[in-house]
Amino acid sequence: MALTLMEGNEAIAWGAFAAGCRFFAGYPITPATTVYNAMLRRLPPAGGVCLQGEDEIASIGFCLGASMAGQKVMTATSGPGISLYSDQISFALGSEIPIVIVDDQRLGPSTGSATRGADGDIQFLQWGKSGGLPVIVLAPVDVRDCVILTMQAFNLAERFRCPVFVATNKEIAMTRETIDLETLDLPAVETRTLADPDAPFQPFAARSAAPVPAFLPIGGERLVRQTSSTHGPDGYITTDPELIAASQERLVQKIMASLDDFTYYESEETPGAQTLVITYGVTARAARDAVARLAAGACPASLLVLKTLWPVPDKLLQATAEGYARIVVIEMNLGQYVREIERILAPRDIVFYGQMNGDLIRPQKIQEVVAHG
Amino acid sequence: MALTLMEGNEAIAWGAFAAGCRFFAGYPITPATTVYNAMLRRLPPAGGVCLQGEDEIASIGFCLGASMAGQKVMTATSGPGISLYSDQISFALGSEIPIVIVDDQRLGPSTGSATRGADGDIQFLQWGKSGGLPVIVLAPVDVRDCVILTMQAFNLAERFRCPVFVATNKEIAMTRETIDLETLDLPAVETRTLADPDAPFQPFAARSAAPVPAFLPIGGERLVRQTSSTHGPDGYITTDPELIAASQERLVQKIMASLDDFTYYESEETPGAQTLVITYGVTARAARDAVARLAAGACPASLLVLKTLWPVPDKLLQATAEGYARIVVIEMNLGQYVREIERILAPRDIVFYGQMNGDLIRPQKIQEVVAHG
Amino acid sequence: MALTLMEGNEAIAWGAFAAGCRFFAGYPITPATTVYNAMLRRLPPAGGVCLQGEDEIASIGFCLGASMAGQKVMTATSGPGISLYSDQISFALGSEIPIVIVDDQRLGPSTGSATRGADGDIQFLQWGKSGGLPVIVLAPVDVRDCVILTMQAFNLAERFRCPVFVATNKEIAMTRETIDLETLDLPAVETRTLADPDAPFQPFAARSAAPVPAFLPIGGERLVRQTSSTHGPDGYITTDPELIAASQERLVQKIMASLDDFTYYESEETPGAQTLVITYGVTARAARDAVARLAAGACPASLLVLKTLWPVPDKLLQATAEGYARIVVIEMNLGQYVREIERILAPRDIVFYGQMNGDLIRPQKIQEVVAHG
Amino acid sequence: MALTLMEGNEAIAWGAFAAGCRFFAGYPITPATTVYNAMLRRLPPAGGVCLQGEDEIASIGFCLGASMAGQKVMTATSGPGISLYSDQISFALGSEIPIVIVDDQRLGPSTGSATRGADGDIQFLQWGKSGGLPVIVLAPVDVRDCVILTMQAFNLAERFRCPVFVATNKEIAMTRETIDLETLDLPAVETRTLADPDAPFQPFAARSAAPVPAFLPIGGERLVRQTSSTHGPDGYITTDPELIAASQERLVQKIMASLDDFTYYESEETPGAQTLVITYGVTARAARDAVARLAAGACPASLLVLKTLWPVPDKLLQATAEGYARIVVIEMNLGQYVREIERILAPRDIVFYGQMNGDLIRPQKIQEVVAHG
Repeated sequence: MALTLMEGNEAIAWGAFAAGCRFFAGYPITPATTVYNAMLRRLPPAGGVCLQGEDEIASIGFCLGASMAGQKVMTATSGPGISLYSDQISFALGSEIPIVIVDDQRLGPSTGSATRGADGDIQFLQWGKSGGLPVIVLAPVDVRDCVILTMQAFNLAERFRCPVFVATNKEIAMTRETIDLETLDLPAVETRTLADPDAPFQPFAARSAAPVPAFLPIGGERLVRQTSSTHGPDGYITTDPELIAASQERLVQKIMASLDDFTYYESEETPGAQTLVITYGVTARAARDAVARLAAGACPASLLVLKTLWPVPDKLLQATAEGYARIVVIEMNLGQYVREIERILAPRDIVFYGQMNGDLIRPQKIQEVVAHG
Repeated sequence: MALTLMEGNEAIAWGAFAAGCRFFAGYPITPATTVYNAMLRRLPPAGGVCLQGEDEIASIGFCLGASMAGQKVMTATSGPGISLYSDQISFALGSEIPIVIVDDQRLGPSTGSATRGADGDIQFLQWGKSGGLPVIVLAPVDVRDCVILTMQAFNLAERFRCPVFVATNKEIAMTRETIDLETLDLPAVETRTLADPDAPFQPFAARSAAPVPAFLPIGGERLVRQTSSTHGPDGYITTDPELIAASQERLVQKIMASLDDFTYYESEETPGAQTLVITYGVTARAARDAVARLAAGACPASLLVLKTLWPVPDKLLQATAEGYARIVVIEMNLGQYVREIERILAPRDIVFYGQMNGDLIRPQKIQEVVAHG
Repeated sequence: MALTLMEGNEAIAWGAFAAGCRFFAGYPITPATTVYNAMLRRLPPAGGVCLQGEDEIASIGFCLGASMAGQKVMTATSGPGISLYSDQISFALGSEIPIVIVDDQRLGPSTGSATRGADGDIQFLQWGKSGGLPVIVLAPVDVRDCVILTMQAFNLAERFRCPVFVATNKEIAMTRETIDLETLDLPAVETRTLADPDAPFQPFAARSAAPVPAFLPIGGERLVRQTSSTHGPDGYITTDPELIAASQERLVQKIMASLDDFTYYESEETPGAQTLVITYGVTARAARDAVARLAAGACPASLLVLKTLWPVPDKLLQATAEGYARIVVIEMNLGQYVREIERILAPRDIVFYGQMNGDLIRPQKIQEVVAHG
Repeated sequence: MALTLMEGNEAIAWGAFAAGCRFFAGYPITPATTVYNAMLRRLPPAGGVCLQGEDEIASIGFCLGASMAGQKVMTATSGPGISLYSDQISFALGSEIPIVIVDDQRLGPSTGSATRGADGDIQFLQWGKSGGLPVIVLAPVDVRDCVILTMQAFNLAERFRCPVFVATNKEIAMTRETIDLETLDLPAVETRTLADPDAPFQPFAARSAAPVPAFLPIGGERLVRQTSSTHGPDGYITTDPELIAASQERLVQKIMASLDDFTYYESEETPGAQTLVITYGVTARAARDAVARLAAGACPASLLVLKTLWPVPDKLLQATAEGYARIVVIEMNLGQYVREIERILAPRDIVFYGQMNGDLIRPQKIQEVVAHG
């Protein structure tokens, strides 16, 4: 056993590298800067590229260009930077450009408190761009998750050719924990399916068996057509309603149809529990403590920790909630993901507790909410 | 009676001017550019300012500065521009700077189809910034609404010191309709409450009877402290959890507590109807036709047209849905606002129809959905 | 007599306003910021516009647009800002857009010392853009010159439709002096010659008697064609060598042929002097003292203070230097304008003294140079 | 012998690579883009970096950062891009950061004619930044010079830690010529002198025997202090006049004192000639033809082709001009470098011919000027 002391941002960088990421671009912002630092130590010695753009807009632009050229790419920022990424997230989504985007959330709105954590971007990550099509958002609980989920994020970005977010928080990103990297059970690394360079090529044509087009890099022998405008399978701009509808349907289905394959979570079932606590992110750690303390008491509770937040894993939620009289949702914001749970689990009794003041939510507070909330 | 032929963008400009707006800044983008054009004809002759910034970021920055100096301000863009506004929307929200933002939605994602309408930004407008705090979004149905709701948008921005969106769509913004401006019943014009310039001033202190602070302009005799960081009543940056929590609670309550006062809608109750159709925006016009045609048939339906989209008017929805066996939600996107309706009205039978392909949804399609959907 | 205590920057603003300037845009930089401040106090109350762009590039862009629309416009910056103006100075020159640009020089290179004066941009102002065509540079000596030469700068910009620089220095710009504004002999205000809006219009056609085209504003009834590319009299882009050569010849001649009309200077002839001291800017004030002190001694000297630096007034230099055995050139840099004097007055005995260390050059130093040089 | 067909831009890239350049950043502009293309083919396979910034400002910024980290760096642009580089050229000069800047001149002013050559930036390159301190400008005549002078440019940038320009022109940059790369006599490659990393380090302290400080890269073990403000030997900002004066004197002397070592030129002495033709750049090729044709006629002329333009090689000019009754200066602009020649060689009879209309100057025109000019 070889323990390493590592903060979440370093673990994300470790996972990205293990997943084959060799291109990183970003612009410094607390608490995401140390992802950049960690990538800077890893990438150039391995022949990769790590660079800072003139601003966030340039930085994600570099990433998308490199991804179109075939690289596995990542960028990392916090809320104000996600704002500046918004336009190009939309481009990545519509033009099916794989990218992993780390959001080290901090207390907002606006510049807020740079050194305090929050989970304030949970709806932002899904909806923060025009058109409303689905993206994938994974939320690690600890340093181990930072490794594993970042690797999964790359796999999903490659598999579905879409933006995938790792939604973490200053409290995970910049806290060091021990981890035994050697004994981790790492996921197998996936790489986007390549098209036959010698066959006629349509950059946005779904393959017969799957809704994700095969990929060819820009800059190669074969011309690859890319546009940020609505386009048909051939990549040419179009305003044909049927082509547009088919393309958007495909953008939805390629992700939604496979949701079960990447519904990551942890659950703890407590015998006799009438209450199910649902949470995610760093708050899951307090929730584990709270549930353990409650187990022997008058109000035992079970726990569901979501690690896939978007698309909302409705089947998991319905199956897990089965039989509980009461659902308690805990979030480090003023009520964001609870809306999805209400939507899916209504009209059950759903209790929410949230805070977004820079403090972590303590186990005792969760115990109180379960007991009296 | 004096009929004027006017497109939605011109009506928005007319309403803004009538509401006292004398400052507009924006960056050209189809289909919002004619708002700019219309303001350019009105403002300078009236001593106002109308200008184009270097880009969207500069343009909204000008607006926020002018608003902090006491002006009523507006900007107008489309989805890609809202992306670039995101960071400063967050600033306006956290620092309580009144602004009206027009979103002439077009077909996304990304640059999409510049000349085709959609209602693809409906979740984006609420969630498109860090922190998740509430904003106000109004959705006009026609040119008359463009006048009236824009005036209401200014009133709400002034009353609550917050960003207010007018969420329209290329199909309203750039379609000319006749309107009799003289017979319109215009809302009374409101102006933000001023602080006593001779009393001690705390820029973010709620007044005893209301959660909205009184305003003093920057640049005057009295120093006014503004920061995009978390701050207390005195405007100084703080990381004190209690002050932050109190401030965020106030940002939520100042809007939520008054939601009934600005829940705008239209409803048509059809005797014997088992189905309630809910929609908004330009689609409401097709829905009216559909409901009229259905009235005498086997499947009569009632209609609720929402004009206040955010905060979600849950009381209105619950009250109006009372007694209907079936809810039909129609949207010009792939399913955005229906999520809110599911959240509030579940577990009723909720049927959704949406399309986002550049075509308007036709009355016949809505009839089909109501009858067979 | 009504004395006012005024710094150079305020005097420049006063002169600009008196010359009819009603549009100012700039970006803050020491020591030019107080020009902005002074314009901000004057322009809006008079119906004018004063604004800060997102950066220097946007700021001069606003000015050029306003000038094309018929306004008299000014911007003010220091060396680093002139760098960022360079591209658009070239546009103003080639597309004959009147603008007055104030350069409050500070100690360079680069950001150098923001609060120390220098005359380090004297060659930069003429050569700091592609193509090498002539511009006009005027250099005030004191607050009174700041008023008068700024007014002349506007007259010249209007008369020749070209960029005109007021090259001053932190030591004049930010030093307060008394001035009696009522007794000043102000130049008559000129305005660019307008074309007949009802006659066929060629935006870059020289009128029969003069090489400067008549002007029509953009945005009016008559279409006005503007391009930053090489163009013929009709304003269309061209690569025709004859049209290009004719256009460039005109850009040179419209200024050079009238140089005598705007060769501003002061001279003091000392009987018996063998030495002529030549200088400009704030250093002229020390030179006056030095010459006065030297008058009764063994080395009397005459003085020529240049106020028109570019185009180089060669006739004035030759005529004034006539008969002197020795020329002493004093500059607040390491030797810039002396190169022009060498070019014109060689092979006379030319002695140079310069310093660019943040200190003013003192009269005693000039005396030493004249006596022992 | 192995002939290669190569345009000037490719030759510049070849020379840069041979000189050890492994970092290139630029923004596309005709006619410089193919330098970028050529570097893109060479650098990444060799472990180097070639990237496009968001704009010219970002691009040269990348270069300066890389140079401070110890890389040999190059960028390439044309007149409008040099404008945008201006601010950072000043930084490179004052902070002694080696960089080679290629200016593929095109016809100005402003965007002018993108596909037509000119030598319109000859004064701009020396004076296009605040402060007026010297830079080095080399001007190739043909593809062979593009190789050799680019290598010399790197050597000089490293030797003197300063910006060095390669001033060429569309007509050389984008014209293919044969060259035998194997038989070229390449200059030995120089690299900046490193400081002892274990000794106390002052980043701007001249070494005893030389005015150029020894270098340590930023980002290493030893802290290296860099500022764009006036600074002393220790790199701390200062406003001390003595320190500033000493620093500026050193910036001048480190280059001027060694000018003889890098005064590159070609001369052809024709027996009996009374006229000396002086020119540079692509025009030298027409001048060679003209001089050859004139040799047997009534007006034989000698030729001096300058390849070091800045600092002006005054000793070379004086020595070469010795004995000629008449100097003919030919330039592909309206008279820029002739000013320097007048300054140095006045009061000789100096005849100038220039044109800047997109056409090359033909031998016959030079013959005419020599014979009748």
